[in-house]
Amino acid sequence: MSFEKFYSEYFPFWGKLNSEDKEYLCQHSSVVQFEKEQSVHNNKECSGLYIVKSGKLRLYMLSEEGKEITLYRLSCGDICMLSASCVLQSISFDVYVDAEMPSECYVINAMAFGKVSERVLEVKNYALEIAVQRFSDVMWVMQQIVFMSMDKRLAIFLLDEITENGTEVVSMTHEQIARHLGTAREVVTRMLKHFVSDGMIEVTRKGVRIIDKKKLRDIVC
Amino acid sequence: MSFEKFYSEYFPFWGKLNSEDKEYLCQHSSVVQFEKEQSVHNNKECSGLYIVKSGKLRLYMLSEEGKEITLYRLSCGDICMLSASCVLQSISFDVYVDAEMPSECYVINAMAFGKVSERVLEVKNYALEIAVQRFSDVMWVMQQIVFMSMDKRLAIFLLDEITENGTEVVSMTHEQIARHLGTAREVVTRMLKHFVSDGMIEVTRKGVRIIDKKKLRDIVC
Repeated sequence: MSFEKFYSEYFPFWGKLNSEDKEYLCQHSSVVQFEKEQSVHNNKECSGLYIVKSGKLRLYMLSEEGKEITLYRLSCGDICMLSASCVLQSISFDVYVDAEMPSECYVINAMAFGKVSERVLEVKNYALEIAVQRFSDVMWVMQQIVFMSMDKRLAIFLLDEITENGTEVVSMTHEQIARHLGTAREVVTRMLKHFVSDGMIEVTRKGVRIIDKKKLRDIVC
Repeated sequence: MSFEKFYSEYFPFWGKLNSEDKEYLCQHSSVVQFEKEQSVHNNKECSGLYIVKSGKLRLYMLSEEGKEITLYRLSCGDICMLSASCVLQSISFDVYVDAEMPSECYVINAMAFGKVSERVLEVKNYALEIAVQRFSDVMWVMQQIVFMSMDKRLAIFLLDEITENGTEVVSMTHEQIARHLGTAREVVTRMLKHFVSDGMIEVTRKGVRIIDKKKLRDIVC
């Protein structure tokens, strides 16, 4: 599909652009493939706007000591605005983006998008709206971190994973789960042991298999 | 000062409004006083946009169990947009706002502001920009919670307090400090004892007196 055709369906502001701006954005667009676990955006530069065509991206914060916490994921059709934070001068924090599986994205150069957003208020509005939506996602993560015990957070994480992937197995190591939750592997391992002895899950070589969803949900509520 | 005169200096979008919209916003404005610790916005309704004339407001999250965490404070000249989240449909989280000291605010009715923001793109843009700026503040709080030990967070909190208030004393109880940091009073008391024995602070009846700023800063870095 041509960029023009895709953008005309994707961006609500497309009709407000003159043909020069449309051409300009298309000229500064490309399609990029990422391998599993490849870095998409590492916070060193304003890398661009990514629209996920296929696969999944993960957005996270990283501490100086290498500790991580997952903020949210982007799937097919989602757009990553924080990797183009130079477009939004009011954003002053750093995030990292990795591909969680082999992924393909449309990329629009951040400077090009920024220039058009300065000219056309509808474009600026769109970028801000997307950022504010993500604000809500991040507040949900924050609420979990501050107010919920780790067993609740782990239960929510496991339930979200199987719902999103449509399977009964969360194919991750304890280390990977810990990274998502911003905690230590030992904490996850200990917690999972409790879940096993309560008959809610099974820990196999492939990952964590959910046996009793209802019980797991009871922890959350 | 009349609303019209104040708004014309305060809002960058004022010149873009027609005289009807200007009048409409002024008609839906009022001045409200709050006593110390009075609730300004309690999340039950979309209460309005508050511009702080004097005093200080505190914005925080509240858990079902009554646990709090301070997100940021608003001083003279700051505007509170999240108390009018109905204006920003993409905001789906709840916050609470209290007056931290006797405060006076200009208030614009949220529905009135929302209507004008639907008509005038510059107004919508302004509201979104303010929200996105606060996103950055919240990310900084999140970073502290996830990545920093409690002694660092407490040191940052004490240093911020004396800088903001221009004194050497943080006039709060341990309980109040704990609420700001989203932790238990016992944790704060224990931590402060360490700070006392290291000669950084003194705990008096009036609150916490900072004796050695440099040492306190060393904890942070």
